[in-house]
Amino acid sequence: MTTIQQTGEDGAIQRMIAGLSTSDSVICGPGDDCAVVDTGADQLQLLKTDAVVEGIHFLPNEQPERVGWKAIARVVSDFAAMGGWSQHFVITIAISGQREVSWLEGLYAGLEKCAREFGGVIVGGETTSLPDDAPTVISVAGTGAVERGAWVSRSTASPGDVICVTGALGGSIKGKHLDFLPRAQEGRWLAQSGKVSAMMDLSDGLAKDLPRLAGLSGCGYEIFAKDVPLTPGCDLNAALGDGEDYELLVTLKDRSALENWPFELPLTVIGQMSDPSVKLMPGSGGWDHFSQ
Amino acid sequence: MTTIQQTGEDGAIQRMIAGLSTSDSVICGPGDDCAVVDTGADQLQLLKTDAVVEGIHFLPNEQPERVGWKAIARVVSDFAAMGGWSQHFVITIAISGQREVSWLEGLYAGLEKCAREFGGVIVGGETTSLPDDAPTVISVAGTGAVERGAWVSRSTASPGDVICVTGALGGSIKGKHLDFLPRAQEGRWLAQSGKVSAMMDLSDGLAKDLPRLAGLSGCGYEIFAKDVPLTPGCDLNAALGDGEDYELLVTLKDRSALENWPFELPLTVIGQMSDPSVKLMPGSGGWDHFSQ
Repeated sequence: MTTIQQTGEDGAIQRMIAGLSTSDSVICGPGDDCAVVDTGADQLQLLKTDAVVEGIHFLPNEQPERVGWKAIARVVSDFAAMGGWSQHFVITIAISGQREVSWLEGLYAGLEKCAREFGGVIVGGETTSLPDDAPTVISVAGTGAVERGAWVSRSTASPGDVICVTGALGGSIKGKHLDFLPRAQEGRWLAQSGKVSAMMDLSDGLAKDLPRLAGLSGCGYEIFAKDVPLTPGCDLNAALGDGEDYELLVTLKDRSALENWPFELPLTVIGQMSDPSVKLMPGSGGWDHFSQ
Repeated sequence: MTTIQQTGEDGAIQRMIAGLSTSDSVICGPGDDCAVVDTGADQLQLLKTDAVVEGIHFLPNEQPERVGWKAIARVVSDFAAMGGWSQHFVITIAISGQREVSWLEGLYAGLEKCAREFGGVIVGGETTSLPDDAPTVISVAGTGAVERGAWVSRSTASPGDVICVTGALGGSIKGKHLDFLPRAQEGRWLAQSGKVSAMMDLSDGLAKDLPRLAGLSGCGYEIFAKDVPLTPGCDLNAALGDGEDYELLVTLKDRSALENWPFELPLTVIGQMSDPSVKLMPGSGGWDHFSQ
């Protein structure tokens, strides 16, 4: 008898997906930021599901508009990390019948606001009841699109590639985790640049997410502690471990992408991919849903 | 202050979706069995999200394989009710870290079994933690396809149309609700026949679902009590109100579709659509997630 907490999130996922079949239509299956499938349209389709849970991703007394924004923005962030954009969303809500309808209206206002801002339309949903004391669960599934040949995996970095992040890391719990702007334009630009070897969005913290990217790419990594961009008021441990940054973690084949970077938001070199024997991450941390 | 329980499921949904925007790509938005969108592929795309909750849709000690089967089958059933078929699935699981990993493995075995049986591939998922005493929530989002011009709405019945159902109704709680076969072939055949004016799948019971179809179609209805096909051991109230039948509710422009019906599963005439002033449903009942 092994619990999910004992294996951790990644261990549990490995065991769940071990027996899954695939098909010719699947370009990229479980394990990346999104799935990539071929539906016969001009562009490839991106598929993503994600959830926010009361007490984990938002507090019970949080404004529902902010919760809705976050729920959509997390999915948009994953599409950005593949180099694509959002198209359609469907929403599942599991909630106690004792909650106020106005909370759901506020939630939907936030969902709609974020979808409108970043592109994409809410086309359906499902609402189901929970016991009165159970935490509300909001699951957002989205479809997106990306040009054939332009999508970026998290498994294709190589030793020697430059490691960069957008923005600054740490301290998201102070508010950014609810109001963050997914790096949609930046992700598109990076994918179109042709200079990116791998990309993912930072949801569990650099200390947790970079080893995932490196593992899938068959690489190691070296992070230069002094170069990690810190959110004002945060130290290095917070920047590496807090999670919910929703910045892009990018590996570049060469530094020339940095020269033409057209955004105000910084793109900062923080390290270098290496051969698999090197794993240099200052501090320790990162968020595991089932180990904390 | 109005609770969700006070408005009921349909009332809450109306208020949630009131402010949603749409786009040219949306052929059919919230309110039908699935959304129908145009992604530029040869076929239209179907989008659906659905959830099963521990203690509501399955018991805590249920075999996880059966739970997984049900979770996928419910989505396949909605695609069938539009005349389409399933393609890709993404799975969100919210669960306590104290649960056994083997439960998740069993769940995925059931998800995979049903997807394999009815077509479609699981391409991704998300797993998030819940407090130890919270009920497990499994949300399945799926994409499907249907030929342009062949999809069937629930809002297009007319007075005089013949009302039919597949199979027999009632008593699903004795086991069928976990092991049911979504009417995928039957739904495809009906949509291709050109004789169907409206279709939906019966998830909350005929007494609840037919008024939805009739309301969206601007019609009334008359159900012939003696003709409703009863699951052995069930009375009429059970057949109308138990819910989770996952049979197809179909309205036909004429009876000729019945003559060529190629399946062993019965397709039974149970009533007639009428003008909106007539609403004749024997007994009372049907499942509202938030009113029971």
